[in-house]
Amino acid sequence: MSKPNIQLDSQGRLKHFLTIDGLNRKMLTEILDTAESFTGVSERVVKKVPLLRGKTICNLFFENSTRTRTTFEVAAKRLSADVLNLNVSTSSTKKGETLLDTLRNLEAMHVDMFVIRHSDSGAAHFFATHAAPHISVINAGDGQHAHPTQAMLDMFTIRRHKQEFTGLRVAIVGDILHSRVARSQILALNTLGTSEVRVIAPRTLLPADLRTLGVHVFHDLEEGIRDVDVVIMLRLQKERMTGALLPSEHEYFQLYGLTEKRLKAAKPDAIVMHPGPINRGVEMDSQVADGPRSVILQQVSFGIAVRMAVMSIAMGTQAQGAAAR
Amino acid sequence: MSKPNIQLDSQGRLKHFLTIDGLNRKMLTEILDTAESFTGVSERVVKKVPLLRGKTICNLFFENSTRTRTTFEVAAKRLSADVLNLNVSTSSTKKGETLLDTLRNLEAMHVDMFVIRHSDSGAAHFFATHAAPHISVINAGDGQHAHPTQAMLDMFTIRRHKQEFTGLRVAIVGDILHSRVARSQILALNTLGTSEVRVIAPRTLLPADLRTLGVHVFHDLEEGIRDVDVVIMLRLQKERMTGALLPSEHEYFQLYGLTEKRLKAAKPDAIVMHPGPINRGVEMDSQVADGPRSVILQQVSFGIAVRMAVMSIAMGTQAQGAAAR
Amino acid sequence: MSKPNIQLDSQGRLKHFLTIDGLNRKMLTEILDTAESFTGVSERVVKKVPLLRGKTICNLFFENSTRTRTTFEVAAKRLSADVLNLNVSTSSTKKGETLLDTLRNLEAMHVDMFVIRHSDSGAAHFFATHAAPHISVINAGDGQHAHPTQAMLDMFTIRRHKQEFTGLRVAIVGDILHSRVARSQILALNTLGTSEVRVIAPRTLLPADLRTLGVHVFHDLEEGIRDVDVVIMLRLQKERMTGALLPSEHEYFQLYGLTEKRLKAAKPDAIVMHPGPINRGVEMDSQVADGPRSVILQQVSFGIAVRMAVMSIAMGTQAQGAAAR
Repeated sequence: MSKPNIQLDSQGRLKHFLTIDGLNRKMLTEILDTAESFTGVSERVVKKVPLLRGKTICNLFFENSTRTRTTFEVAAKRLSADVLNLNVSTSSTKKGETLLDTLRNLEAMHVDMFVIRHSDSGAAHFFATHAAPHISVINAGDGQHAHPTQAMLDMFTIRRHKQEFTGLRVAIVGDILHSRVARSQILALNTLGTSEVRVIAPRTLLPADLRTLGVHVFHDLEEGIRDVDVVIMLRLQKERMTGALLPSEHEYFQLYGLTEKRLKAAKPDAIVMHPGPINRGVEMDSQVADGPRSVILQQVSFGIAVRMAVMSIAMGTQAQGAAAR
Repeated sequence: MSKPNIQLDSQGRLKHFLTIDGLNRKMLTEILDTAESFTGVSERVVKKVPLLRGKTICNLFFENSTRTRTTFEVAAKRLSADVLNLNVSTSSTKKGETLLDTLRNLEAMHVDMFVIRHSDSGAAHFFATHAAPHISVINAGDGQHAHPTQAMLDMFTIRRHKQEFTGLRVAIVGDILHSRVARSQILALNTLGTSEVRVIAPRTLLPADLRTLGVHVFHDLEEGIRDVDVVIMLRLQKERMTGALLPSEHEYFQLYGLTEKRLKAAKPDAIVMHPGPINRGVEMDSQVADGPRSVILQQVSFGIAVRMAVMSIAMGTQAQGAAAR
Repeated sequence: MSKPNIQLDSQGRLKHFLTIDGLNRKMLTEILDTAESFTGVSERVVKKVPLLRGKTICNLFFENSTRTRTTFEVAAKRLSADVLNLNVSTSSTKKGETLLDTLRNLEAMHVDMFVIRHSDSGAAHFFATHAAPHISVINAGDGQHAHPTQAMLDMFTIRRHKQEFTGLRVAIVGDILHSRVARSQILALNTLGTSEVRVIAPRTLLPADLRTLGVHVFHDLEEGIRDVDVVIMLRLQKERMTGALLPSEHEYFQLYGLTEKRLKAAKPDAIVMHPGPINRGVEMDSQVADGPRSVILQQVSFGIAVRMAVMSIAMGTQAQGAAAR
């Protein structure tokens, strides 16, 4: 018997969104379909819907990330929720409150959903474990472990461009070791039936347990992206790279920077993705970042609809919403 | 003839909420009844109502308090008001604006209500004195003088559990000297007809004028809480305790820390309250804080409804609201 | 042939509001008339209207200005828009994002309008040049170049009191050199047909190119304000004054500070304006600032309606709104 999945309620429906791990293809597809329902023909359009009217969503950020916080704030407001932004490093934790006390107090203030970013893996999991039954918890990034809404917006972007995952060859390039999102992406791609997932990185930026995830590992960029449909570039987490064996930015670009020339090895209609913000001239040059194969800004745009989908599904309000449209 | 109460309008209705002082039992009861109308059977539920739609409420915090600011922000949004959060220490007061200029400018920006927190006693009073006639001012804590919405949420919590104040014996334990809230609590308890109010503290943490408030003073915890119905623990204001005669945290807990053993001296159905955040192991141990007699999180929860009540009464919108429900 | 005006769309309608330069009298008058439609008989009243419901307005402040940001936030909420406040100095620009990347990402997050404050002249212009076609950009102050909504609220205040600009004599007094707003005021006054615009300042606080703007320059205050209808005092930008030839605050007040005695030189019904916050005892004494000729707080109040007007015109929603009222 498998241990119960904290993310699901007693009827097996998604209650918290903490990690891709343990979610099946049907659940991931429901997120993608719901996100689809919020978007228009163009990625420019996202609807404002009353699905979470009267609900209070708390953006609880233990580490600063204006970019991620803003996407969740926009998504929550598009769902007509009330939003509380709490940057906890400057808050009453300084007065000696524990994480549990913070949860209990915010819960008592009638918060219906927490969006949590914390440097420690497991903070969102802790909240989900201890929150009152009616509360949902969304992980907005925890240490190096998971950043699952980013992974889902990547899946949404791929599906928009490639329709289905079967038959696709996807390469993830760069700093797998320090990436919040690479592991989530690999799990999501596998769950959705992607034919081949490749990982391209120097040995020093690969985690030890990677091969258990069923990916093909390459150390040479041009070899690795040959004939792929999708190239996902990771952001170089410069502030986390402190080892002596790590490459300089210049060396990194020489070996793993994506250029138009190198991109020729991929399929002619391959798309290029990046979670942003781009280090131009490090992970890729500007011709690629701003070129016709780049879907990087679409990722940001789809990210709003995907976060709306995750929030409304977790709150159990998406069905009525879909019916009301 | 008594001097006019700045808190009341010309018809004697509550216009500003600055201090419990000068408010009669009818007014305090109206606040409690209105708060009751916003809550459900469980303390988990608080309604979203359109009573302050189109109104702008300015949270004007001259000292940082995320916790208090958040409760007012949630309450204002539950009343459908627009909320402006201004942390004034980082604002244009640095450019040399006086308090009066700040008031005049925000007033000119069509603010309808100010929620003010300021370290100086009297800042909220100053605003109420000088604000335009249509504006209401709520005191969210000023120095050591008053924190009246905290006192009212305490009263609400007591009434929920004990139904009425007549016949009750209530003990307030701890740092009375530096507490924003103890004086407000004593006034409210007396006004609402509590049979006996006790204060339990070391001599060094008692203000000189306390006996004029009609309380019974104890210096021994177990003696003081004997047969009480309600135990209100105060937060030890460590940052304000600088005198040489003050106890260490360890000494304090030895003498005044609430434990399950000591709590046995109170009535079997006595409730334990604390304004939060708790210093666990100082004011009380965790068994009490998280135990069956603790109503500490309910206090936080009721605090939203009580602040909604104060805001809507001060704006003169509660009556129509109650009728419309 | 004149070069195309970036502020106008292909039909010649106002799309961005960056500078008074290039806008004709009809456009400025439309802003004033639309602002008029949002106000009541008293300056105290401003309507809440649904003109921008479902739109997201991003306050993008690269330098801190709580005062200006608050006026735009209030105006946006009065138009029923969703508001995102981003203080970019503490944001991902630290991670190396360029200004263009910041624009592209926020645009992708479905922002419909940017309100920008940046110390560099031209930042708002850059956004307007590169933003997607459906997006409007409002300049909330850029370096020493322009602060056009402040200028328009000044025009609104003058028109409220003097009905029309023809026949008026207006004096602008003070630090023209470092003022964001003086150039905008002069342009707006000239465009609206003001009979005479005077500038009163020490030689060290006058820009070299001033005479090309068609103003009369005075170095003596009493001579300059003789028989004027409107006196606009500028704020002394103390933090920008570093030259050895500049006067001390005391010297400045002796020469250019407005007092009741000096104000007697102006017309008996002359009004006194100031963008705030006032340095009392430097630009003017408190008797003038708080006296019967001062309209300084009305300026703040009218600023909300004027910003609402600019926002709704730029979004092309004011016409339907006016019809729906």
